[in-house]
Amino acid sequence: MVRAGDGRVVATTDLLVEGSHFRRDWSSAADVGVKAAAQNLIDVAAMGAVPTALLVGLACPADLPVAWAQEFTAAFDAECELVGAVLVGGDVSRSPTLTIAVTALGDLQGRAPVTRAGAEPGDVVALTGRLGWSAAGLAVLSRGFRSPAQVIAAHRRPTPPYAEGPVAATCGATSMCDVSDGLVQDLGHVAAASAVQLRIETARLDVGPRLQDVGRALNVDPLRWLLTGGEDHALVATFPTASSVPGGWTVIGRVGEGEGVLVDGAAYPLPGWDSFRGSRA
Amino acid sequence: MVRAGDGRVVATTDLLVEGSHFRRDWSSAADVGVKAAAQNLIDVAAMGAVPTALLVGLACPADLPVAWAQEFTAAFDAECELVGAVLVGGDVSRSPTLTIAVTALGDLQGRAPVTRAGAEPGDVVALTGRLGWSAAGLAVLSRGFRSPAQVIAAHRRPTPPYAEGPVAATCGATSMCDVSDGLVQDLGHVAAASAVQLRIETARLDVGPRLQDVGRALNVDPLRWLLTGGEDHALVATFPTASSVPGGWTVIGRVGEGEGVLVDGAAYPLPGWDSFRGSRA
Repeated sequence: MVRAGDGRVVATTDLLVEGSHFRRDWSSAADVGVKAAAQNLIDVAAMGAVPTALLVGLACPADLPVAWAQEFTAAFDAECELVGAVLVGGDVSRSPTLTIAVTALGDLQGRAPVTRAGAEPGDVVALTGRLGWSAAGLAVLSRGFRSPAQVIAAHRRPTPPYAEGPVAATCGATSMCDVSDGLVQDLGHVAAASAVQLRIETARLDVGPRLQDVGRALNVDPLRWLLTGGEDHALVATFPTASSVPGGWTVIGRVGEGEGVLVDGAAYPLPGWDSFRGSRA
Repeated sequence: MVRAGDGRVVATTDLLVEGSHFRRDWSSAADVGVKAAAQNLIDVAAMGAVPTALLVGLACPADLPVAWAQEFTAAFDAECELVGAVLVGGDVSRSPTLTIAVTALGDLQGRAPVTRAGAEPGDVVALTGRLGWSAAGLAVLSRGFRSPAQVIAAHRRPTPPYAEGPVAATCGATSMCDVSDGLVQDLGHVAAASAVQLRIETARLDVGPRLQDVGRALNVDPLRWLLTGGEDHALVATFPTASSVPGGWTVIGRVGEGEGVLVDGAAYPLPGWDSFRGSRA
């Protein structure tokens, strides 16, 4: 039984399928446990709610080592504990395909939920959390490298800014989402839901020396990881004014009349099918 | 966002995996949709709560016909509508194995949740809903028959007594669960959780002429389907006295000191591994 302080609860659900969302040769059971918890906890936080309770369905092959499930669960629990949420239910079944279904519930603490649909022309766009690191780590792993360790760790275990979701809601965020598919793509959903145009300036995105280094080594413009890389689970939100943006957030653009997302004044070409991630709905 | 009238919400989650929990050659998309909704709705009802909101994760092969997903969803929605619950969220992903993950939330309406742990010596055991029909239908299908239609329909689409869960809670049920794995097995969980012995009398179970006929045709004692067949999702509960048992429920036994389940005074041999249903956790 879950208590919902103000009589309202937000709920979100996500599937992780082996081969589409993770690979056991690239990620440990604990890595997958952290990722499964993190992406649902941040979904709840992105609505401005505090995650309270999670349910997990685990469909696993008959030959899955018991230790894998135990390590997965321990890491999942530990990630939930970071935000004070608890695992309250679950189901286990056999399946040829290792699949993890997570549902997370959250408490709005009396606030209205923040959706993708509230951005208004004149608002500012702001970001908190790491961006591009998971994509850089995936690029490194995809080319068969095993370093630098920091970007690989970022791919294996996101560190989303959970607490910033409720903070943004309290500060009057008009729309919010986490960056799970890539900044431009996720902002595109906000633009469509809010019927506005979001205008991002790359000069305001901090690539940082680490991703610059990895970009040089792989001959990739690291800015592309920031604009199109998913799975870091940064939070991006719109606020009525620059002065309402909480500390720890960076203004990266503005909301205007129109549609879609402009990057430095132009449409940004999105990548096509990403075979590793599989389909996204 | 889900409203929880009294500030408390119950939540339950279940996985359906193709090959383990359903077969597309035996069940239509609509059948699977009904089953996926029904088993979660009744889980909520068995806690004495009214189902309010559901979330669905659908992991599907690339070649799954769009019509399959549409028919699944329409039937799922229609089953939820029977109890006034709504689909509030979901996720879709690609997977080699068709997998459906359902989470259901329910409103306790100010009552305490009914668990498996509250049965007391002196209570009566009572049942509502159909028992043994799904197992009879499965037996018919397994032998390659396509009739009688009523038991096959019962296997494909359970008709759980949703409304009786909250009714039982209001009438003071001390423990409750739905029969998803078989009466004896599910009562075994109640006996263990409550630290009591449950004593069932088969003379109080109504086999009925339909299952008698099927039993004769397949040379099976139909009582076995009532005692060990799952998936009809009948509700079984304990009540302090026979007079507190609501109309529409049948007293089938008593609670005593001790442990486990007695059927007509003796332990009942449970079946071993059921290859169709796969593992159960």
